[in-house]
Amino acid sequence: MPRYKLTIEYAGTRYSGWQIQANARTVQGELLRAIRDAAGEEPLDFQGSGRTDAGVHALAQVAHVDLRHGVSPGPWRRRVNDGLPSDIHVLSAEPVSHRFHARRSACSRSYLYQVCRRRTAFAKPYVWWVKDPVALEPMREAAARFAGMHDFRSFTDADPEESSTKVALDPILIEEHGDLVLVRVSGSHFIWKMVRRLVGVLVEVGRGGLTPEQAAGFLEEDSPWPARLTAPASGLFLERVAYPGDPPAPPIRPAVEVRRVEQG
Amino acid sequence: MPRYKLTIEYAGTRYSGWQIQANARTVQGELLRAIRDAAGEEPLDFQGSGRTDAGVHALAQVAHVDLRHGVSPGPWRRRVNDGLPSDIHVLSAEPVSHRFHARRSACSRSYLYQVCRRRTAFAKPYVWWVKDPVALEPMREAAARFAGMHDFRSFTDADPEESSTKVALDPILIEEHGDLVLVRVSGSHFIWKMVRRLVGVLVEVGRGGLTPEQAAGFLEEDSPWPARLTAPASGLFLERVAYPGDPPAPPIRPAVEVRRVEQG
Repeated sequence: MPRYKLTIEYAGTRYSGWQIQANARTVQGELLRAIRDAAGEEPLDFQGSGRTDAGVHALAQVAHVDLRHGVSPGPWRRRVNDGLPSDIHVLSAEPVSHRFHARRSACSRSYLYQVCRRRTAFAKPYVWWVKDPVALEPMREAAARFAGMHDFRSFTDADPEESSTKVALDPILIEEHGDLVLVRVSGSHFIWKMVRRLVGVLVEVGRGGLTPEQAAGFLEEDSPWPARLTAPASGLFLERVAYPGDPPAPPIRPAVEVRRVEQG
Repeated sequence: MPRYKLTIEYAGTRYSGWQIQANARTVQGELLRAIRDAAGEEPLDFQGSGRTDAGVHALAQVAHVDLRHGVSPGPWRRRVNDGLPSDIHVLSAEPVSHRFHARRSACSRSYLYQVCRRRTAFAKPYVWWVKDPVALEPMREAAARFAGMHDFRSFTDADPEESSTKVALDPILIEEHGDLVLVRVSGSHFIWKMVRRLVGVLVEVGRGGLTPEQAAGFLEEDSPWPARLTAPASGLFLERVAYPGDPPAPPIRPAVEVRRVEQG
């Protein structure tokens, strides 16, 4: 029973998230259909590295799929892509051992968030447009407080699948790229809504509505603020899922970049 | 009666083209509504530099609008943008003399076409995805034959508004940028469907389906081929409308660029 590792990019705009559901269009559901058609059989197992919420994108979601019969990965991947809508795309398919598990083998995940400082006709589905000026230094100061192991209880909603709200975060990167402010959040795992709430709090710090100290305080005691400040799904990309032996993360850069026309 | 010059970007995907129509959603129609609301009056005149077809985008369409009462262009532009859908955006608004006319004063127009050589989940609305390999040198050879004054009769459909099918083209630029092949076509004016048919013919040359000589032959005698090869609207951007005294065109670069994730 061969197992294949798939790397997948998708625009989440039209989907009710990754996870397959009976009465909603989901990324996993579209993929399962295309995989079934291309393989001519029902996969025995098909699991992603984790869920993404409605509207959230992926530059490189990882999944594994078990088939009864071996396939030639290159031509099979092309057949899968031919059966997919244009906003879902399998970047690669490779045979892996049964010791590889898309979710359990992952040692780190990173998310990229795109804040855009100007209104743009083209990028709306891929950014959060923030009208107010956003100052990077206070954001970085707050972000530094979040690195390391903390209890992110205030940053999540009750989720029966999560046993703990403690998460170890790598240092958060915040960089400017033209009109974009890019935020990369990476760590061993994440809990529900955590990244969007973290980004929402950081942007509020950048706007001057919170001090870095107040933001760090949300780690110390329960607060309704992170939930109220949740950043929109449109700006969020699952950027990378890393497995033991993978090379280090590449430098941060935009997922979708739109040309700025000089005015006047 | 003050006149203002507007520079506008839009994603044409959801619109039946630029030109206002009674029973269709158009870019000019959306703008007119937002301008009317922001100015508190019906504009006396509102004209673009030219039409764009359904699905075609603009990085910098230019229009002029005549109002009865003067407005403060900066705040007024922001009010117009607040009233527009997210895929239309007024980049600038500036007072101009009545000698300025968006269409008649324009001395040159340029279009950018984006061909994408890989399937991508994010860029579909902004590119033409061409699966076959596309060779640039034969495309450039064919493009060189199109520069200068020619009769582009085979590249247009009968349009009662056009009195002549003769058009003077600047040298066509064709450049690679990652997975994109960018084509810039510029000239004093264009006739209906001409740019998409020109690009369709050039791409067919790049695919090896036509020789540069055959492509050049379409200028000499009527042929149904340019119409059959019409490139899709999604890849086309009205890039720039130039007026006397404007600086030279900036170097060619992508309108919307999507990050390539390294595979494997």
